[in-house]
Amino acid sequence: MAKLTPRDVDFNEWYNTLVLRADMAEHGPVRGTMIVKPYGWSLWENLQAGLDRRFKETGHQNAGFPLFIPESFIKREAAHVEGFAPELAVVTHAGGEKLEEPLVVRPTSETIIGYAFSKWAQSYRDLPILINLWNSVVRWELRTKLFIRSTEFYWQEGHTAHATAEEADFETRQMLDIYADFSINDAAIPVIAGEKTESERFAGANQTFTVEAMMGDRRGLQAGTSHNLGQNFAKAFDIRYLDQNNERQYCWTTSWGLSTRFIGAIIMVHGDDQGLVMPPRLAPHQTVIVPIFRNDDEKTMVMEPVSRIKQELADRGIRVKVDDREHVTPGFKFNDWELRGVPIRIEVGPRDVAKGTVAIARRDIPGREGKQFVAQEGLTAIVEQILDDIHQAMYEKAKQFLEDHTHRPKDYDSFKEAIGDGFARVWWDGTTQEELQIKEETGATIRCLPLDKPEGNGICFYTGRKTDKVAMFGRGY
Amino acid sequence: MAKLTPRDVDFNEWYNTLVLRADMAEHGPVRGTMIVKPYGWSLWENLQAGLDRRFKETGHQNAGFPLFIPESFIKREAAHVEGFAPELAVVTHAGGEKLEEPLVVRPTSETIIGYAFSKWAQSYRDLPILINLWNSVVRWELRTKLFIRSTEFYWQEGHTAHATAEEADFETRQMLDIYADFSINDAAIPVIAGEKTESERFAGANQTFTVEAMMGDRRGLQAGTSHNLGQNFAKAFDIRYLDQNNERQYCWTTSWGLSTRFIGAIIMVHGDDQGLVMPPRLAPHQTVIVPIFRNDDEKTMVMEPVSRIKQELADRGIRVKVDDREHVTPGFKFNDWELRGVPIRIEVGPRDVAKGTVAIARRDIPGREGKQFVAQEGLTAIVEQILDDIHQAMYEKAKQFLEDHTHRPKDYDSFKEAIGDGFARVWWDGTTQEELQIKEETGATIRCLPLDKPEGNGICFYTGRKTDKVAMFGRGY
Repeated sequence: MAKLTPRDVDFNEWYNTLVLRADMAEHGPVRGTMIVKPYGWSLWENLQAGLDRRFKETGHQNAGFPLFIPESFIKREAAHVEGFAPELAVVTHAGGEKLEEPLVVRPTSETIIGYAFSKWAQSYRDLPILINLWNSVVRWELRTKLFIRSTEFYWQEGHTAHATAEEADFETRQMLDIYADFSINDAAIPVIAGEKTESERFAGANQTFTVEAMMGDRRGLQAGTSHNLGQNFAKAFDIRYLDQNNERQYCWTTSWGLSTRFIGAIIMVHGDDQGLVMPPRLAPHQTVIVPIFRNDDEKTMVMEPVSRIKQELADRGIRVKVDDREHVTPGFKFNDWELRGVPIRIEVGPRDVAKGTVAIARRDIPGREGKQFVAQEGLTAIVEQILDDIHQAMYEKAKQFLEDHTHRPKDYDSFKEAIGDGFARVWWDGTTQEELQIKEETGATIRCLPLDKPEGNGICFYTGRKTDKVAMFGRGY
Repeated sequence: MAKLTPRDVDFNEWYNTLVLRADMAEHGPVRGTMIVKPYGWSLWENLQAGLDRRFKETGHQNAGFPLFIPESFIKREAAHVEGFAPELAVVTHAGGEKLEEPLVVRPTSETIIGYAFSKWAQSYRDLPILINLWNSVVRWELRTKLFIRSTEFYWQEGHTAHATAEEADFETRQMLDIYADFSINDAAIPVIAGEKTESERFAGANQTFTVEAMMGDRRGLQAGTSHNLGQNFAKAFDIRYLDQNNERQYCWTTSWGLSTRFIGAIIMVHGDDQGLVMPPRLAPHQTVIVPIFRNDDEKTMVMEPVSRIKQELADRGIRVKVDDREHVTPGFKFNDWELRGVPIRIEVGPRDVAKGTVAIARRDIPGREGKQFVAQEGLTAIVEQILDDIHQAMYEKAKQFLEDHTHRPKDYDSFKEAIGDGFARVWWDGTTQEELQIKEETGATIRCLPLDKPEGNGICFYTGRKTDKVAMFGRGY
């Protein structure tokens, strides 16, 4: 099989080829739709498990909301309709007849959630309402890219209603923290948590927070967002409750989401010229065992320890696969699993059996350096340790990359240079108009206003004015 | 709160009220759509886990397929389009423009799966393909009922492709067995496994198998179906592979599904006049602990063992909830959890604390008979045992009910009487025409031709002819 186009030569080509070749996803028959293949879906299931556990630990419950939303709902919140109207898919006919009111295929569920919450929130005792939906949504996009931008994508959308502004603010930030924690500790992706500027805000939100990551081509990608919706949707959908003084009050609501886009981030942050590099805690297969034999005698000899090792690893909860295909060579299998990014490859051949050892190869360290021979005895503990080491090494590498390509320019010229290489972290005092001007001239947008910023003031690189605001600029996906 | 309408008085009213009052689901704003509330969704998640484990153990993998299918796809398989055309929802506009080809919102995914399988199945080495989708589908229904029939419902749809007819037959029956095993061992619902007659067959299948259950009103409900699609979809979508002799062959495909309808079955099989009765292995909460106290001193005294017991149960993997609401009485809580069908209620009051005991009440045995006082020491093992006992008792009760209301009439008059009471299991030699005639006259359809039937022959109750076929008739949902 031909080598992948190196990332340096054409990152986009590298990505598109890799997604297809690693059996992650392919294009559906309808333009812009995506078929997520079992290998890609298995990664998504592991993402779901990691997030779902965190959501439930913080008191959220899952629910199921309809796909179809009356068109009139979308129009009730002024900013919301403006943001989403151009992207809607509309059902006009059903059951062989024209519908009286067209139905929108949900682009996001704030409006239909508003409809339900207005019934569910009667008294202060009903609050907070903390729910989450795992579903797919549809946004008609012209330029699509598997996982990154598709007309239908999978995600979770959390929706909550609270009695006070403080609680809604706490929830918005808590969920942002959860996304950051998940990125770092499950996906080995360093992120910058911050607020979006007005121009990048969710349609209908008072504040949008984001965790931003840097891809291998040094572009930014929004990995998860958390929105403080204030009372905007509560007023549009009459979400009110009786407080302890028996007075009707509007609720404060939030929403937050992370999508299959995150799979694109995993590919683009960790992948190398040989293929995917799966973060161990999310990898569909954490370990693949390749038995090596040239004849039936050797096969019998090798398969006994292979089966035993597989069982021992599986018993400890390690996701392990034995590649016992007979019509391809071990070399083919090595390349195949390298392409698919399995963190650890274990090879067992007749010589290993004789010595009671196996060969272990780390995906994140290519060639001999990443290879070691270890005893079969006690292998499970070693594999667990190596998986942790790989996670840590992948995180450190991505963090170093992010830092190496994050600059602190003091003027517009060095800013342009910085943007050519990655992110520019700057003192910022510009207007929305100036932000758009910079975008037009450099292709860079404000990825976020980082929450973690120094005290005090600095000079805005663009306006020259003194400011206490810091912005992270970068070209984005 | 008013009592539920007793099932004997109006089963339909009992069901509809219970679903709403127990916070399982409610109607969405678009006619026929359903909002599954957190309590109902939690039950669905437990169903999903039980099925998903079985699917994966038998080698199936999950994937994600698009919601939108080109309208032309639906038309490729003649029987399929005839069956589904009247129920389709159609997207005609998207992104502000009229689409060149309308898009169908999937009513089921055989056609788009056919599109993908035709690319995935190249060689005999690619077979079998064994995948499953967890998603929602849309069928425009006129008469809807929460969980039982809605325009959008949640389900899993399995899709497989095989090299031989034998393998497809094995798969079809294997998945039927899995549905039966799940019904019996997870949901405590006895089922009759059998084949559907031609008139009830899936549109496009050669054979449809079903597991049928009897609801509390003695009507039948199809709890899961498994279809042998023969080469129908393979021919319509050109799903072909190169066999070992390098010759192109059509695949043999299957599909199989179980939906949120199954939640309706759980409600209607096990529920009683007091409310839901959740089967312990699927129950959102397997145990609820109600602390009982009249003042702060008693509260302090009671909450210590309550927290400890909760932790002990949770550590053993028991889904346990402490109801520590302070604005409602213990009596209110007892009724509330009875309505919601929690299998075991544990009460802890000051006297229990003094004695080192708790009171345990079984949901499936009302009143004093179902109540016992046990020591706090060793409670977890007792709770585990009682959960198993409840499962067994619920299954036996449902099985006895099914048997009590299954009759073996020998002629049409006694057949009509039997149908008035439940199912009629009969020798059957009629035609499709005669089957429809019987439906018109009695409201009964052939639920299935049971796979488990006696050897030899008998006399058809309707035609008087000798036959070796057995049919199970009943009124259905």
